[in-house]
Amino acid sequence: MKALTVSKIGGNIAESPEKLDAFCKQFAASPSPKILVHGGGVLASEIQKKFGMVPNMIDGRRVTDAETLRITVMAYAGWCNKNIVATLRKYGCNAIGLAGCDASIIKAGKRAPLNGIDYGFVGDVTPGCVNTEVLETLLSAGLVPVLCSIVHDGNGQLLNTNADTVASSVAAAMGAGLDCVFEHAGVLLDQNDPESLVNELSYSEFKALQAAGTISGGMIPKLENGFKALELGASSVNIGKTILKI
Amino acid sequence: MKALTVSKIGGNIAESPEKLDAFCKQFAASPSPKILVHGGGVLASEIQKKFGMVPNMIDGRRVTDAETLRITVMAYAGWCNKNIVATLRKYGCNAIGLAGCDASIIKAGKRAPLNGIDYGFVGDVTPGCVNTEVLETLLSAGLVPVLCSIVHDGNGQLLNTNADTVASSVAAAMGAGLDCVFEHAGVLLDQNDPESLVNELSYSEFKALQAAGTISGGMIPKLENGFKALELGASSVNIGKTILKI
Repeated sequence: MKALTVSKIGGNIAESPEKLDAFCKQFAASPSPKILVHGGGVLASEIQKKFGMVPNMIDGRRVTDAETLRITVMAYAGWCNKNIVATLRKYGCNAIGLAGCDASIIKAGKRAPLNGIDYGFVGDVTPGCVNTEVLETLLSAGLVPVLCSIVHDGNGQLLNTNADTVASSVAAAMGAGLDCVFEHAGVLLDQNDPESLVNELSYSEFKALQAAGTISGGMIPKLENGFKALELGASSVNIGKTILKI
Repeated sequence: MKALTVSKIGGNIAESPEKLDAFCKQFAASPSPKILVHGGGVLASEIQKKFGMVPNMIDGRRVTDAETLRITVMAYAGWCNKNIVATLRKYGCNAIGLAGCDASIIKAGKRAPLNGIDYGFVGDVTPGCVNTEVLETLLSAGLVPVLCSIVHDGNGQLLNTNADTVASSVAAAMGAGLDCVFEHAGVLLDQNDPESLVNELSYSEFKALQAAGTISGGMIPKLENGFKALELGASSVNIGKTILKI
């Protein structure tokens, strides 16, 4: 089998009809085996607000009570997943939309309260949680798994998790390349200058740029996650056009 | 391969935690190849109301504008589907939750306006719409497809449809037995007397009972659908404990 790629798209693509269509057209055209990972946080927050709820995010992770879980499952595994699959089918991609509970692709533990914070129905995913055998079966049948970041505990409980972590864990477990499709060209030394793109980044260079304040905010967990995937078995990792090196 | 059964459950089971748990325990225990079909209309109506919308049903079919479509996809393919899958997994069933867009299991046409009524994003499903090859592939891999009544048109458009029609079309296309799991024991001659169960029912007997007013209401489309499945290739059909005969 040709080298497998795990692509991860964020809400800026998954939840914009025009960007999603353009992405799906390009993704469908690649002949290699592939898996697509996504979340659906923008839609989940929109529904929470329509339900009169206030989304409660701590460090980018949604505090998930029973009703919030139902909403995230509806948003991620329902509309976002099936809308992506239908759009991929339009471009001839043999997509199959799944959550981590399906065929037990990802069985995770419920996160224990951390530093006094109970995140509720949130799962912690590691490469060891990934059922690589069933993914191989689906890929061998010529299917393209489209995986949302809803997982289960194996005992009937669905759990909400994070698409970056799902993507890096799947890539590491499958020894695949991880392609984080990103709203910017990649890691930039100057956010306002697309010419300042970093082509290759090592972990020590990342840490130096972080210490200098050049890399900050949401880029830090994204890069930490990418380097972790490399360390745990991903064959390559890129954030946009920036290639990570251990 | 042993004989395949397509089971269809209604909202009374799919949307009641206790009944769903009991059903899943029993369904998981059956060793034969099987497919489960469900909708999610109760939850869809609940969300429509929370969104300040008024569900518009004509002859049991939901008039589906773009926002209603998004809600039905979230309800059927999101919460209902994944909750059923997680519950089946608890009982060791290798369930995989899917909608008709996934692997293009069901590609249908958008219903044309009928008698002046535009149903919107509603699909009409027939046995010819069913991709039997991909269902065989999944079943051969030991997976149990859990299929909700959301389909697609192959050109990027999701469509809402009816779980009874999906179940009968899949059973007919696969030459499978159709088991409509039902809130009553089966077809009753007296709704208040479970002892009045009809063990076997032919189409002419059905029509005579309908003419006499003994069979009425929602039972009529359910039986029409069952007899149609038999006619189009299902190996057997039962509505609860009542076995249909051509």
